[in-house]
Amino acid sequence: MPSAGHSAAPTRFAYLGPEGTFAEAALVRLVGSLGTTPGVSAHPEASIATALAAVRAGEREAALVPMENSVEGSVPATMDGLVVGDPLVITREVFLEVGFVLAVRPGTTAAGVRTVASHPHALAQCRGRIAELLPAADVVPTASTADAARRVAEGGYDAAVCAAIAAERYGLDALVTDLADHPGAVTRFVLVQRPGPPAGPTGADKTTITAVITDRTGALLDLLAEFAVRGISLTRIESRPTRERLGVYSFSIDCEGHVADARVGDALAALHRLCEEVRFLGSYPRADAGAGKPVEEKVGDAAFAGAQAWLARVREGSAV
Amino acid sequence: MPSAGHSAAPTRFAYLGPEGTFAEAALVRLVGSLGTTPGVSAHPEASIATALAAVRAGEREAALVPMENSVEGSVPATMDGLVVGDPLVITREVFLEVGFVLAVRPGTTAAGVRTVASHPHALAQCRGRIAELLPAADVVPTASTADAARRVAEGGYDAAVCAAIAAERYGLDALVTDLADHPGAVTRFVLVQRPGPPAGPTGADKTTITAVITDRTGALLDLLAEFAVRGISLTRIESRPTRERLGVYSFSIDCEGHVADARVGDALAALHRLCEEVRFLGSYPRADAGAGKPVEEKVGDAAFAGAQAWLARVREGSAV
Amino acid sequence: MPSAGHSAAPTRFAYLGPEGTFAEAALVRLVGSLGTTPGVSAHPEASIATALAAVRAGEREAALVPMENSVEGSVPATMDGLVVGDPLVITREVFLEVGFVLAVRPGTTAAGVRTVASHPHALAQCRGRIAELLPAADVVPTASTADAARRVAEGGYDAAVCAAIAAERYGLDALVTDLADHPGAVTRFVLVQRPGPPAGPTGADKTTITAVITDRTGALLDLLAEFAVRGISLTRIESRPTRERLGVYSFSIDCEGHVADARVGDALAALHRLCEEVRFLGSYPRADAGAGKPVEEKVGDAAFAGAQAWLARVREGSAV
Amino acid sequence: MPSAGHSAAPTRFAYLGPEGTFAEAALVRLVGSLGTTPGVSAHPEASIATALAAVRAGEREAALVPMENSVEGSVPATMDGLVVGDPLVITREVFLEVGFVLAVRPGTTAAGVRTVASHPHALAQCRGRIAELLPAADVVPTASTADAARRVAEGGYDAAVCAAIAAERYGLDALVTDLADHPGAVTRFVLVQRPGPPAGPTGADKTTITAVITDRTGALLDLLAEFAVRGISLTRIESRPTRERLGVYSFSIDCEGHVADARVGDALAALHRLCEEVRFLGSYPRADAGAGKPVEEKVGDAAFAGAQAWLARVREGSAV
Repeated sequence: MPSAGHSAAPTRFAYLGPEGTFAEAALVRLVGSLGTTPGVSAHPEASIATALAAVRAGEREAALVPMENSVEGSVPATMDGLVVGDPLVITREVFLEVGFVLAVRPGTTAAGVRTVASHPHALAQCRGRIAELLPAADVVPTASTADAARRVAEGGYDAAVCAAIAAERYGLDALVTDLADHPGAVTRFVLVQRPGPPAGPTGADKTTITAVITDRTGALLDLLAEFAVRGISLTRIESRPTRERLGVYSFSIDCEGHVADARVGDALAALHRLCEEVRFLGSYPRADAGAGKPVEEKVGDAAFAGAQAWLARVREGSAV
Repeated sequence: MPSAGHSAAPTRFAYLGPEGTFAEAALVRLVGSLGTTPGVSAHPEASIATALAAVRAGEREAALVPMENSVEGSVPATMDGLVVGDPLVITREVFLEVGFVLAVRPGTTAAGVRTVASHPHALAQCRGRIAELLPAADVVPTASTADAARRVAEGGYDAAVCAAIAAERYGLDALVTDLADHPGAVTRFVLVQRPGPPAGPTGADKTTITAVITDRTGALLDLLAEFAVRGISLTRIESRPTRERLGVYSFSIDCEGHVADARVGDALAALHRLCEEVRFLGSYPRADAGAGKPVEEKVGDAAFAGAQAWLARVREGSAV
Repeated sequence: MPSAGHSAAPTRFAYLGPEGTFAEAALVRLVGSLGTTPGVSAHPEASIATALAAVRAGEREAALVPMENSVEGSVPATMDGLVVGDPLVITREVFLEVGFVLAVRPGTTAAGVRTVASHPHALAQCRGRIAELLPAADVVPTASTADAARRVAEGGYDAAVCAAIAAERYGLDALVTDLADHPGAVTRFVLVQRPGPPAGPTGADKTTITAVITDRTGALLDLLAEFAVRGISLTRIESRPTRERLGVYSFSIDCEGHVADARVGDALAALHRLCEEVRFLGSYPRADAGAGKPVEEKVGDAAFAGAQAWLARVREGSAV
Repeated sequence: MPSAGHSAAPTRFAYLGPEGTFAEAALVRLVGSLGTTPGVSAHPEASIATALAAVRAGEREAALVPMENSVEGSVPATMDGLVVGDPLVITREVFLEVGFVLAVRPGTTAAGVRTVASHPHALAQCRGRIAELLPAADVVPTASTADAARRVAEGGYDAAVCAAIAAERYGLDALVTDLADHPGAVTRFVLVQRPGPPAGPTGADKTTITAVITDRTGALLDLLAEFAVRGISLTRIESRPTRERLGVYSFSIDCEGHVADARVGDALAALHRLCEEVRFLGSYPRADAGAGKPVEEKVGDAAFAGAQAWLARVREGSAV
């Protein structure tokens, strides 16, 4: 069966489970925006690694996994998981505001909460508010925020710190919303698929790569110059450890634009020459606020096409 | 009382607790290397934020907190915690290999393990080995790896996935060492103090800064050029979200060299002019394998001193 | 006797002779602008080399010599003459429009001109007009345009192609002005003195240097980056042959700004480290149309001073 | 008749006259090296402008004109003459050591020389030696060095300062060779033709362009970066005045490599996008000592081809 490529919305998803966590909430938002409700299946996976493996093995068409989080930072399991193993590319990104609720069985009041359960990370992010609201409650770790909600529903604990979607799924009430000590945390999820004929540029796209360079003062500068001379802004850059090989550095980079854009394709081709290794990890529509900055004329597709046409004429001697 | 500055080893430490976790192991290694055993006190803190606060408040001289981890990535709580609030600087770094053991009460065999407890992150990193060695055991989350060890010692669970130091502290035996599915994980801890007269360069130093720039294609390139033109290699760079201000980017950067080195001082002064904001986060001896690359003559201290002397003569008209 | 430095206007000048050529016209303009009429002496020299030698020997305070010409190009005798030998610096520049007149004895008409004399360069620049106006005249070379005027005054030839100043000096009439085939040629003259306490910046200055670098792809880029990162525009750059040493390149450069400006001094100090050799050839008021572009705040003197003060505080541990 | 392009050696030449000057000597050397002796015609032209016009008009196939001289500097008439008017390209370069002889009629001795004639430039370059050898002789300007030789042969003057080829042509003896005060002057001549199918790369080529950029600090740096990122060394750069347009700069540049080389073609295409205007002025075999530096692998043709092939696969989704 010929592949429709990435222009067709996938229907069989893996996501970082368990059910009822933020990854599922992100998937719900994404699937809604993809307009693929009929026939969609979504399978929670125990880890990012198994989610990616399910796509590599063809069991799932696409996996939704976290890439970076404004509180926890970047997610190495995703970054490294994309780089090691058979090729995968990002085809979508989703930004989800990560809000915690204090979920209880209907009828429970704050005074009735003696135990509060959640994943240790969630408990850490809500420590101050819990101490203020429930100074006497015992705090109990669970394997996930959704697991905490399930256990509250079963009567094991009195309250869970979890996503709104988990409260809903287990029939709990949100006694408190916006429970985090520092609200506004955002997680960026990416949808990952096997390579295929890509969807075209939308005019507001992002491209993700990893590039490996040998250690030479100025090597990073040379790499970044290839973007700058073509007027391409980076939206993220992160050096990554490459412990195996001393003196070798790896960078994970997001830049604006689509590989089908002349300026981006040209920059990537230059990196292919320059770097020890470049891995293309996808071009996809931007989901953040940065969309819409216009491309300068001298690095637009027409300028590249004009330059190539001029060069061809120069080379054949018909123009100077 | 006049401060002895950062040349004198601190004796009253805070560290990211609880006791028996990897931060304590890192502190033991650091204090050993500092040669400050007599009179040392070490206080576990519930969070990175409270550890930093204890130093800012003067309750502790120094805090040892994780900066980045080869599996979990960078630690935003530390990076952001250094940038927001009263000034703090890094004065040391420690690299610790993060190895998990399967800790049991003396006499317990693998056949006798029905429950395995640990922090969810540790459980995730050892998932494969646990499934292989203890396929029938129940896996139970705890608030920390050290907490798991304590509960095993108390008889609540049969085995803990924890640091060797926790097994030792609670009188447990390591039934299995090197339990992680992918061994070799390393965490970089940094020792943080209030600003003070710095220790001098050792010849193999690192400097950490954060720099904030406005969004302009090439602004990052300009920033990095200030390092490259002075022959300074970066050892880490990471773009950091600055949600409050659209179009403004923040970078967390480690470079080789010491602020007292002419080339590093000169580069930082240039960044001070160029950037919206620069925050100096310390110069300290390198603890990683990169130590010892010689400084090129043209960016050595003598070359800078010679250039300044020449410029002074040119300006007074006595030489050209 | 202590030198008053370059703030005091010189009074004993050498210039590229003979009398009555464009160099004298440029000197007249310069001396007028210097306001030094009383006591001024001006001595024509047979060559640029002897003019420079007269200053080096202290026989003359300053020499006015041509640096570049819009028709003839740069003047190697000046450029190289400044670089080889005892130090000299440029303290002024003068732009002179080079206009030729057809000078005849009073009463002579075009019909009466059978011989036209001048320096071959001047004849070449007026070839078309002469052929048109005096199709039957013989064209005769002389050693200089002024020499042609003198010979016309003496009756040896009928007409001279020379500067207006030469016609005036020898009592000739300008039968035709603007004789050049392509009018608008401009020569840039520079006033050269021995080093001394320099005059301060005027706010619209130029600085001239020569820099020698070894042949490495990108070495020129590194050199120019030192100007660009400090927001300094170049107004002229020219690679110069260095035949003696293979693989070594020399560049003659004019940039905006004064060596007393922080950004220019800082750039020159960087070049002193970076280059095989740098020779400072003077900072002086601009005489061309480029004057007046404002200096960006981040490369202004205050920004440099602020950065140094900040660095000093960082180094002593009192600020970050 | 289809053009054979620049691979075929031209046979009808123009050169900067008159006969017996250095341009003719350069042409003799070039024609010898071209192996085109049979059927060659060579026509002296009165000026560079008329030599170029003869080629533009198709009267001559090629013109040999001076481009730069180690004593006189660059030759604006050639540089500007290539840029203004119908397209012309350089197809060859010749370096000629410019040596002066003192030419006399056979039998004349130094004691018998009362008048020495030559072009003023030649007289200036030999002033010291003439004063030393012939302190009592009168020095007389002529329109060219060859004209001086002709007049000596006719008996008008006793000695000429001229090229060896002129002495030979007019049957004179060289009383003194190496007459220049500073021997070793070299002139670079270029052979100019109308555009046509170019000869292929030889492995040691040079390419000449002019590029016009608008005045912005760093614009020149951006231009040069396009060469540096592709490992291309410049062998000459010169800013050229563009009086007509304020704030616009023109640069005359020679770089290593051939437009058919991937790295050079790619750089020129980038300049075409970046600059206000780029004019290709030819790719041709190097005639100087710089030949033979190997091209780094990452900027070789194979690396460019590999990068384009990789990019094509990435764009179609068949590889990452």
